[in-house]
Amino acid sequence: MLNKLKDILIGPPLPTHQLGEKKLNKIRALAAFSPDALSSIAYANQEIYLGLVVAGSVGLGLAWPIGLAIVGVLTLVAISYNQTIHAYPSGGGSYIVARSNLGTVPGLIAAGALLIDYVLTAAVSLTAGMDALASAFPVLWPYRMTLALFVLVLITLANLRGLKETGTLMSIPVYLFLITYLPMLVYGLIRLVIDGPSAPMNAPPATEGLTTFLILHTFATGCTALTGIEAISNGVPAFKSPESKNAGQTLIVMAVLMTILFAGSIGLTQFLGIVSSPHETILSALARHLLGSGPIYFLIQTSTMLILAVAANTSFADFPRVAAILAKDSFLPRQFTGLGDRLVFANGILMLAAATSILIIGFQGDMHSLIPLFAVGAFLAFTLSQSGLVMHWWRERGPNWRLKMAANSVGALATGVTLLVVGFTKFMEGAWITILLIPALVVLFSRIRAHYREVGRGLTLHGLPPSLKPAPTPRVVIPISGVHRGIVEAVDFALAITRDVTAVYVELEPGEAEAVQKNWKLWWPDIPLVVVPSPYRSIIQPLIDFLDETDAKHNDGQLATVILPEFIPAKWWQSLLHNQTAWLLKAAMLYRRRERGFQRVIIDIPYHLRK
Amino acid sequence: MLNKLKDILIGPPLPTHQLGEKKLNKIRALAAFSPDALSSIAYANQEIYLGLVVAGSVGLGLAWPIGLAIVGVLTLVAISYNQTIHAYPSGGGSYIVARSNLGTVPGLIAAGALLIDYVLTAAVSLTAGMDALASAFPVLWPYRMTLALFVLVLITLANLRGLKETGTLMSIPVYLFLITYLPMLVYGLIRLVIDGPSAPMNAPPATEGLTTFLILHTFATGCTALTGIEAISNGVPAFKSPESKNAGQTLIVMAVLMTILFAGSIGLTQFLGIVSSPHETILSALARHLLGSGPIYFLIQTSTMLILAVAANTSFADFPRVAAILAKDSFLPRQFTGLGDRLVFANGILMLAAATSILIIGFQGDMHSLIPLFAVGAFLAFTLSQSGLVMHWWRERGPNWRLKMAANSVGALATGVTLLVVGFTKFMEGAWITILLIPALVVLFSRIRAHYREVGRGLTLHGLPPSLKPAPTPRVVIPISGVHRGIVEAVDFALAITRDVTAVYVELEPGEAEAVQKNWKLWWPDIPLVVVPSPYRSIIQPLIDFLDETDAKHNDGQLATVILPEFIPAKWWQSLLHNQTAWLLKAAMLYRRRERGFQRVIIDIPYHLRK
Repeated sequence: MLNKLKDILIGPPLPTHQLGEKKLNKIRALAAFSPDALSSIAYANQEIYLGLVVAGSVGLGLAWPIGLAIVGVLTLVAISYNQTIHAYPSGGGSYIVARSNLGTVPGLIAAGALLIDYVLTAAVSLTAGMDALASAFPVLWPYRMTLALFVLVLITLANLRGLKETGTLMSIPVYLFLITYLPMLVYGLIRLVIDGPSAPMNAPPATEGLTTFLILHTFATGCTALTGIEAISNGVPAFKSPESKNAGQTLIVMAVLMTILFAGSIGLTQFLGIVSSPHETILSALARHLLGSGPIYFLIQTSTMLILAVAANTSFADFPRVAAILAKDSFLPRQFTGLGDRLVFANGILMLAAATSILIIGFQGDMHSLIPLFAVGAFLAFTLSQSGLVMHWWRERGPNWRLKMAANSVGALATGVTLLVVGFTKFMEGAWITILLIPALVVLFSRIRAHYREVGRGLTLHGLPPSLKPAPTPRVVIPISGVHRGIVEAVDFALAITRDVTAVYVELEPGEAEAVQKNWKLWWPDIPLVVVPSPYRSIIQPLIDFLDETDAKHNDGQLATVILPEFIPAKWWQSLLHNQTAWLLKAAMLYRRRERGFQRVIIDIPYHLRK
Repeated sequence: MLNKLKDILIGPPLPTHQLGEKKLNKIRALAAFSPDALSSIAYANQEIYLGLVVAGSVGLGLAWPIGLAIVGVLTLVAISYNQTIHAYPSGGGSYIVARSNLGTVPGLIAAGALLIDYVLTAAVSLTAGMDALASAFPVLWPYRMTLALFVLVLITLANLRGLKETGTLMSIPVYLFLITYLPMLVYGLIRLVIDGPSAPMNAPPATEGLTTFLILHTFATGCTALTGIEAISNGVPAFKSPESKNAGQTLIVMAVLMTILFAGSIGLTQFLGIVSSPHETILSALARHLLGSGPIYFLIQTSTMLILAVAANTSFADFPRVAAILAKDSFLPRQFTGLGDRLVFANGILMLAAATSILIIGFQGDMHSLIPLFAVGAFLAFTLSQSGLVMHWWRERGPNWRLKMAANSVGALATGVTLLVVGFTKFMEGAWITILLIPALVVLFSRIRAHYREVGRGLTLHGLPPSLKPAPTPRVVIPISGVHRGIVEAVDFALAITRDVTAVYVELEPGEAEAVQKNWKLWWPDIPLVVVPSPYRSIIQPLIDFLDETDAKHNDGQLATVILPEFIPAKWWQSLLHNQTAWLLKAAMLYRRRERGFQRVIIDIPYHLRK
């Protein structure tokens, strides 16, 4: 039944040979790799607005200059990543670049930062998407968390089925977003030129002064606009030939679009004096101001929500891929490398879905309180990746290496400084969680690899002499609970594999054993039955003591094999009606083995009741 | 470590021969059997007060007549149970009396009612005790639930240690209660005679009219005063010889004390015009009115709390005993018959503690809302037990049988009518829970016995021909995950028990198997290794298919034995780092066996990593 449900939700298994990837042209590649980057404006603008509005209309007057500063960083980072594309045509994820150029620990730091960042991309995109939707339909505002979780479940199921992020379906929201937003921005610009700029009306009174900290803090939250910019450099091999060239051009187009969308919307917001109510995003307020509350406005909000959902979906392609790479390098459990029934890294998808839902529930679906955790991981990965490239050029010294190194140095410096600003200004608000988690993950990665190495050493056959002499036939002990139908198979099996069989009966109440002895003699006169008294009414301890004694007495270098006749009722609930002696004995022996390094073979012989 | 904690909390195991019971004289017996009955006034009075106060001072004027009616029922029930003592000198619990005279189903109904009643006695006594305590120390009022659970844990631990309800320690609260309450009532009577009766001052205004339903409802809740009166008749064998005579005399003394305490306190409450505030019990208000808020008042409240705790404790002696009797008759899981380490029915104690804590938490420690569930079980058991005795006298026809039968008939009628009143007036408030639970329990009891009978039939050796021909040596299949140290023991064991060994390797990625084949040939050239391709990357299904095929091919009437090399890491968390193939395979085979009635022997050969 569970299997049927799985088939309906996820689909039947696919054979391995169907694995393979199609190459993407630039139009499709832009749709595949840009949703996260383009949709960032939804939360970045919102955070800049929320950061400045506490300082009233004076504060809001700073949106444009802060936006320009962020565009500056964006330009530097884009140039840097353009270099990465040409240096790592096989895909230059931060983990690979940092590990190969800076060493294992920086590589693991970048990997930890990346994984956290993917989880946050999913959580922030989903909650921001629900904010956009609930701005248009205020009745949904109280249910944003539930809706975000619902969309998360849909995306998880779609990815478990094996939805490709390169599919046509996924590119529709991206281009819908572009063909609705870009004309809106142009229209806004025309309005601005005709009407002239206006100061924000109805701006709430300032509750805080306009301090340097407030400005830096707003800059830091606004830098979330850059998240996702690295996606193309990770996916160079997916482009049509010439891969690097096409990827580079796509990156430039994407960066230009990001700049237009971000700078355009933030400029219009400031110069048209847009202010939003508590239950509306600033982008929604801008769209409503320009377009009224008609169908075009609803289309804008819907396309925002859709591109954010697609952005969340990109995490579902990236997180499992990075987890699989880490697992292949023994830094994560092997299970993350396994392709599931549908040729996707199912464990990585499930892990991401679990982590994302924890974040969404833990922060009650509130995008604004998730943001402080967000940018830290992204900028740490940026900085390590750019620094890694600086080392790369330094070592390689190809043509123009000085220029390339300089470009990446500027990128590393810009992202590094931004990282410090983000870490400091948002530490108390939540960045500390990410800052603590990353080293914790690095320790976890290292311990996992240490374990696998230890296992590898323990499992080697190297140096083990081939066992030439045949193994001795086992000495078998059968604990019985009485002479009944349930032990017949066990005794038969014991007689089939050895001649050295002893049955043992634990006597709980004095005198009980006599009848058992008599009955036993009747059925198996040739097999000795030992009765062990149990003054404390325990079954397990006397059995274990008996096994120890019999091993000591025989002193033949082997441990007695235990054959357990196990009674298995027809229905699971009936197990509650029986003493789980077999189970308890196995648990006790496992515990002892761990303690003493013993290895006693236990053979379960089930006896199934029909009804 | 867990064992050490258990030793500290519960004590070391006791040997079986220490079991045995001391006989009780009448003074000790009264203390042992009466706490539940005597302490009932604490909640019965409270409920009568709460039932009448909604009708204002007019309502409160009915406390005394209602109290007298309840005393009437009490007298009839006491006379009835005095007969039970003489008819069943070996202990006449409701289950035994009802089952032997009325049949199995009435017996099981009585048993279900009894078990529910014991749980409710524990829950109501504990919560009423905390009400008494919190009346004296109002700061504790919000923490009554937590305190009740804390005392429950203490009582549970004490009973798991093997506290006897007959100990001196337990009799102190009973006599403390008597020597504080009886003088207080005498003093109150003197005050009443001197000062004359007074109408209730400060009685809250009536919110409901004084309807017949309200009066019947109050009578029904007040009847909880009778709970516990049956205790002596269950425990006749514990008395010193002549058992029946001593038990009968003790019952009469107990009934007289119950009457004095109940009628005395309810009379004083009415005629002194006592009214209590919402966070105080009516008994506390009476004591405070008579004694002020000095040390004697605190002593009264403490002794009330203590006797209620002891009353809860009596459930911990009775519930496990009844559960053990039912389990011996196959109506409950066998585990309830087992004496634990400390010679107590530990499973019954734990079950009672769990059920009581669920009630206390479910009703948030509020005694008043538990009461409607309470009396139903008690009066159902009373009625069945008395009806059983009517049958008993009718069948036996000893001396004076007509008189005895008449007495029990009156008892059965009185308790039966009360049961109807209780069931009807409190149905919606919670009695329905008990009324639904009792038949559910009866069904459960019957299904459990049906299962045990089925098992008994399935396990009989009767008619099974002795297997004269020796069992064939097993055909062994070893699934391997590679050629490594972890499979050496498994192969050795296989070679020790049979010559027919096949290894099988599931190839997840095409081409993988070549190296494994080569390595295998090097180590075990004489054992065939079969490679099974797995196009869908599943390990379990190809293995199961292979086993089915190999069985079909051999067609020798036996199923291949599977030897599973199981890798066991040193620490539990390390299991997360390995594919649990052995476990999954066992689960899959168990599932299939259940489906098809298969019985394939699976032998685990663990390989333990040292570190």
